[in-house]
Amino acid sequence: MNASFLAAVAEPGTEGASSNRIVLREFTAPPETETSGLLKIAITGVCGSDWPYYQQLPASRGPLILGHETVGHIDRLGSVARAKWGVKEGDLVALEEYLPCGHCEFCRSGEFRLCDATDWRLGGLRYGATGLKTAPGLWGGFAQYQHLHLNTVFHRVPSGVSPRHAALALPLANGIEWTYLHGGAGPGQTVVIQGPGQQGLSCVVAAREAGAQMIIVTGLSTETDRARLALARRLGAHHTIDIGEQDLLQTVADLTGGTMADLVIDCAAGGTESVTTAMQLARKRGRVILGGQKRRKLPEFDSDMIIARFLTVKGMRGHSYESVELALQLIAGDRHHVTEMSTHMFGLGDTDLALRSLVGEGVEGPVHMTIDPWV
Amino acid sequence: MNASFLAAVAEPGTEGASSNRIVLREFTAPPETETSGLLKIAITGVCGSDWPYYQQLPASRGPLILGHETVGHIDRLGSVARAKWGVKEGDLVALEEYLPCGHCEFCRSGEFRLCDATDWRLGGLRYGATGLKTAPGLWGGFAQYQHLHLNTVFHRVPSGVSPRHAALALPLANGIEWTYLHGGAGPGQTVVIQGPGQQGLSCVVAAREAGAQMIIVTGLSTETDRARLALARRLGAHHTIDIGEQDLLQTVADLTGGTMADLVIDCAAGGTESVTTAMQLARKRGRVILGGQKRRKLPEFDSDMIIARFLTVKGMRGHSYESVELALQLIAGDRHHVTEMSTHMFGLGDTDLALRSLVGEGVEGPVHMTIDPWV
Amino acid sequence: MNASFLAAVAEPGTEGASSNRIVLREFTAPPETETSGLLKIAITGVCGSDWPYYQQLPASRGPLILGHETVGHIDRLGSVARAKWGVKEGDLVALEEYLPCGHCEFCRSGEFRLCDATDWRLGGLRYGATGLKTAPGLWGGFAQYQHLHLNTVFHRVPSGVSPRHAALALPLANGIEWTYLHGGAGPGQTVVIQGPGQQGLSCVVAAREAGAQMIIVTGLSTETDRARLALARRLGAHHTIDIGEQDLLQTVADLTGGTMADLVIDCAAGGTESVTTAMQLARKRGRVILGGQKRRKLPEFDSDMIIARFLTVKGMRGHSYESVELALQLIAGDRHHVTEMSTHMFGLGDTDLALRSLVGEGVEGPVHMTIDPWV
Amino acid sequence: MNASFLAAVAEPGTEGASSNRIVLREFTAPPETETSGLLKIAITGVCGSDWPYYQQLPASRGPLILGHETVGHIDRLGSVARAKWGVKEGDLVALEEYLPCGHCEFCRSGEFRLCDATDWRLGGLRYGATGLKTAPGLWGGFAQYQHLHLNTVFHRVPSGVSPRHAALALPLANGIEWTYLHGGAGPGQTVVIQGPGQQGLSCVVAAREAGAQMIIVTGLSTETDRARLALARRLGAHHTIDIGEQDLLQTVADLTGGTMADLVIDCAAGGTESVTTAMQLARKRGRVILGGQKRRKLPEFDSDMIIARFLTVKGMRGHSYESVELALQLIAGDRHHVTEMSTHMFGLGDTDLALRSLVGEGVEGPVHMTIDPWV
Repeated sequence: MNASFLAAVAEPGTEGASSNRIVLREFTAPPETETSGLLKIAITGVCGSDWPYYQQLPASRGPLILGHETVGHIDRLGSVARAKWGVKEGDLVALEEYLPCGHCEFCRSGEFRLCDATDWRLGGLRYGATGLKTAPGLWGGFAQYQHLHLNTVFHRVPSGVSPRHAALALPLANGIEWTYLHGGAGPGQTVVIQGPGQQGLSCVVAAREAGAQMIIVTGLSTETDRARLALARRLGAHHTIDIGEQDLLQTVADLTGGTMADLVIDCAAGGTESVTTAMQLARKRGRVILGGQKRRKLPEFDSDMIIARFLTVKGMRGHSYESVELALQLIAGDRHHVTEMSTHMFGLGDTDLALRSLVGEGVEGPVHMTIDPWV
Repeated sequence: MNASFLAAVAEPGTEGASSNRIVLREFTAPPETETSGLLKIAITGVCGSDWPYYQQLPASRGPLILGHETVGHIDRLGSVARAKWGVKEGDLVALEEYLPCGHCEFCRSGEFRLCDATDWRLGGLRYGATGLKTAPGLWGGFAQYQHLHLNTVFHRVPSGVSPRHAALALPLANGIEWTYLHGGAGPGQTVVIQGPGQQGLSCVVAAREAGAQMIIVTGLSTETDRARLALARRLGAHHTIDIGEQDLLQTVADLTGGTMADLVIDCAAGGTESVTTAMQLARKRGRVILGGQKRRKLPEFDSDMIIARFLTVKGMRGHSYESVELALQLIAGDRHHVTEMSTHMFGLGDTDLALRSLVGEGVEGPVHMTIDPWV
Repeated sequence: MNASFLAAVAEPGTEGASSNRIVLREFTAPPETETSGLLKIAITGVCGSDWPYYQQLPASRGPLILGHETVGHIDRLGSVARAKWGVKEGDLVALEEYLPCGHCEFCRSGEFRLCDATDWRLGGLRYGATGLKTAPGLWGGFAQYQHLHLNTVFHRVPSGVSPRHAALALPLANGIEWTYLHGGAGPGQTVVIQGPGQQGLSCVVAAREAGAQMIIVTGLSTETDRARLALARRLGAHHTIDIGEQDLLQTVADLTGGTMADLVIDCAAGGTESVTTAMQLARKRGRVILGGQKRRKLPEFDSDMIIARFLTVKGMRGHSYESVELALQLIAGDRHHVTEMSTHMFGLGDTDLALRSLVGEGVEGPVHMTIDPWV
Repeated sequence: MNASFLAAVAEPGTEGASSNRIVLREFTAPPETETSGLLKIAITGVCGSDWPYYQQLPASRGPLILGHETVGHIDRLGSVARAKWGVKEGDLVALEEYLPCGHCEFCRSGEFRLCDATDWRLGGLRYGATGLKTAPGLWGGFAQYQHLHLNTVFHRVPSGVSPRHAALALPLANGIEWTYLHGGAGPGQTVVIQGPGQQGLSCVVAAREAGAQMIIVTGLSTETDRARLALARRLGAHHTIDIGEQDLLQTVADLTGGTMADLVIDCAAGGTESVTTAMQLARKRGRVILGGQKRRKLPEFDSDMIIARFLTVKGMRGHSYESVELALQLIAGDRHHVTEMSTHMFGLGDTDLALRSLVGEGVEGPVHMTIDPWV
């Protein structure tokens, strides 16, 4: 590997979160050990959660390298790591952000995303959310190389898939997890997806893949959402609803002949109303998936709706090993034009711009952005 | 059958719901038809929902006979009814309250409780909630005879089970439905049940039957609840918590070594707080069953809890055919002392007293009450 | 309705089953009753089971009208029937063959196909398998009119769907039931379907609809199967295998990179080997659906395969209400070219020819045949 | 640890499998490494599979230490192992026999028992089935110390549970896995268990724990089986059937009022007939679990039974992490007298005797035997 390489470091500013900034710094590779490895990063996706990380983590954890939708080649690996991982030098892999302990009940039952060791709020390690001061520091994907911890979860990138498209694996896996594996979307069903961002659009693709009969996506009357709703239609949505202009409940009632939706997925990022709307959109015996955290309480809530409609409501976060594998297969076939979701690519020097684009302060119309550290 | 017989009719009072009253009236049997039958009632249980019915229905539907946890003998049946029901004169049967249409998607898929025809708010017919003016009027169980509609759902009472105990079938079926069939209670699990009323205690029995390892029941610091919590322990609860005196969350944390509950069932009748508490009591990947309608909105609600804890929340009402069958089998074996739940029996003349006991204005310490129309 | 009308009656021959024959006879409508109705048949599909019925039933049950994939208009209906069915005169409906009792545990739990009353071997009534001597005799679909028993299961034909295409509902429902609802086909999965007949092809469509990633269909080196395998590819199969020329296990191993199939469905009509092959084709933790009855025993069987591969093997027959509804929706959208399965239409006078075509003694290359009684 | 210690080594005899023998040998501890550990064995259970291992493995793999139901104290552990395992020196743990790779789809989805690396027939490593020549040789539990490979699956023994009883964890886990987690035993159900050996009795305990209403166990007319059937009744079986004296199908029909069993589990070790019997004992829509490998083919098999009865047949082997945890909890409560299953304890010098007792050539009436290497 190179004698030294670059990483985009998120640093705390002197005037609160809004002054946090990205600085390119040079690093050298950490010493080799038997139980770790080094990844030569090909590209890393920008996740919606990178923005709150960028705002909060530099203050609490010190400077750090963000980025966890990481795709790259195994550059070197220790002997213990080699045996544990089943990969070899040169393999093109996509990483999960989790570093699960491997021995708790969640890890042993296939739900390692729930392992306490993956919870950065409990002090757990997680790619893209761990400080430089935690050795060896190179925990993030917005860099040319990344440390590979013994507990890393790897996925092989199918042959023929470019790193840029492979970087869609994690958001798309969320869509598959929420919509199909937990949401139960399938033939004959009506699925309403609230919010046309990266997560909502991933749910569209997953619902389409699972054979849903009618897919409806909601968005706002903004330029950004209008472009995203148009993309939703190209990805397979049968109807899109601009909730600034149309009566959401009435429109869905009209489209479904009054039956409403078998499955509603709330991926809306903004206010809390979409939680209540989700339940109103669901038909009797329907399912509601809550995917978008609100970070504040609903000012009121009619829990009796859940009883009256006999609903099942599930809170979802993240993906399983299976959903990431399914995502990579789906990307490999470029089914449903999924790769159109990859809208922007930046160099390391534009990491701050990419992050700001998540909240409308950067480029126009981003869906899935990537950082290529070598351009 | 008798030339004439008695029924307890709920009538609207002249000064609002609180003046509604029960009057004994004489009826004669309706004319025989091929598509109906007549039940000679042995006993009918008093359901918690009979109270709101008593308050609301006389005004909206006119005088009516309440009571739907009905057990009795087939007195006569028409030829079409005989073919459709698979019962014969003299059979001792327990009825469900529902009169499902039989041909909608819910009826055809085993979820007839969700059939629109069973929804009295949509104008559907339902035993114990249909007015005298809807012919032939005899729709309720607090009477000596009851009309049997062609869509009646019957269960045979196993031999050796007294009508009084058979009248526990519906509340106990709710417990089985919510705790076991939908809640997934089973070996090794911790189950918290909020509210020690008829429904909560039925959930205790069901959790015990399904092999739950630790059953915890919560109640208030009232005389009534204290007696019910004592009964909960006799029925198989391992721990009871007086939430007026003990810190609920801390106590459950202590009892479970910090793990919290696999399953929480909210059967609390009072305020809305128990909805939030239910979610706080659930462990990561836990399930929450909402059974007790609040009839008002929560003043605030943190929906992010559902996401952070990866919860599954289900709204539940009523029972399935299977759960009623399981309940009757359980009663037949008198397992877990379930028949101790039957605490009070009244004659028709005391129907008002029994109903008022539901809200603390009658006898002390009622759990499951029955009306025997022949005493 | 007409004063008299025609039906194709299957009669026992004098020289054993092979001499059974179809005779057109005139009937008049049975008297009206409150609990029944009359269907003016538009068209009726020919099911694979019609052949063994044709061979066996005339001897055991006397002359009868075959045919149970029936589509038609409600011609008249009694008042009790009207209330129970939720249909009205003129409605275009597709029938199920079952006449379930409505009150047993199977009927009450959405699995009415398992109701004893639907089992013609137990003396149950079933459309297309009940003798003329059972009043009112008109139990079959190869006729201009059919009696509607009170226990009939109806499905509304979506607007815009022709009767001929609606007649695909039952075979396609079997495909959906076996492949998706019970087989669990879905995104990312490999599905192998043994036998390209009506049932196998229906499974192809269902697997496609459910998002299966690789669908493989097997057939023999006959002209008929070659045509059917070509149709399988048009319906969405990714690969077809001629087991007369190719090594089945090796080919599937090659196609799947050695992984083998997530789901194998045995729809082969011929010998018993396909049962063992089904299990060999399944991957570890795979599922096997047995759909094609063999009517004889396997000469040997290695049950340890089921253990070693951790398989789930399910025996399937027929459809559920849900799968028929899904089939009609799928036909309404003509997705996956499903209507190409409808290959031949005959008049009543050619009923014998149509039935013989099921076993290669009639027209060439039939997949789904229909009898239009009015041509 | 001790400078040297003893292990019971199974060695190939000179005259075929029947001359294989157990020899006590002295070993010294292998060198410490960062990625491994050493277990001071407290006790190890004797599994039914130890007999075929004893017959086959010495010839194919050379001398080896058998025994994999191992309970002991962590004696030492390397730093990498410490981090990966979440245990510390002195902890009392029960091991699983599997050494799963940790990164394949089965390991990542909670089904590590299916990992190819655990399959000794594919050359995988497994405790109690790996030769001395595979360094460091100490792979078996019939010894005073055992090597701990980095991929070991640990369970903490709950406080208060003796090692001898903890050694019941694996067989009991099989019972829980087959009967409850995969078999779906629960309230109201009838469960038939064929074969009263260690596995069958474990299924009895699991069925009881899960609330099964009627548990029936079958056995032969031998002294051994008679004693085991008596134990089955103490463990919670409601009925036992001596199939040498009673008509099995008729007796189950009588006990169930003709309904037959919801769940049948074949744990019979002998002939192949029990596979067919299992399916005949199952009711319509019933489940059949095949647990006992036959090691030869059925001479004939009527696969149409699976279709006609709408059965689900599952092949089962081994346990999951969850079932072992549930087993340890159940043992900790000594529920259903489960510890009575522990019938015999031997010293290392009697290992051959214990193994021969598995096939009736040793002590009388063994159910679960253990080897205590320190007596």
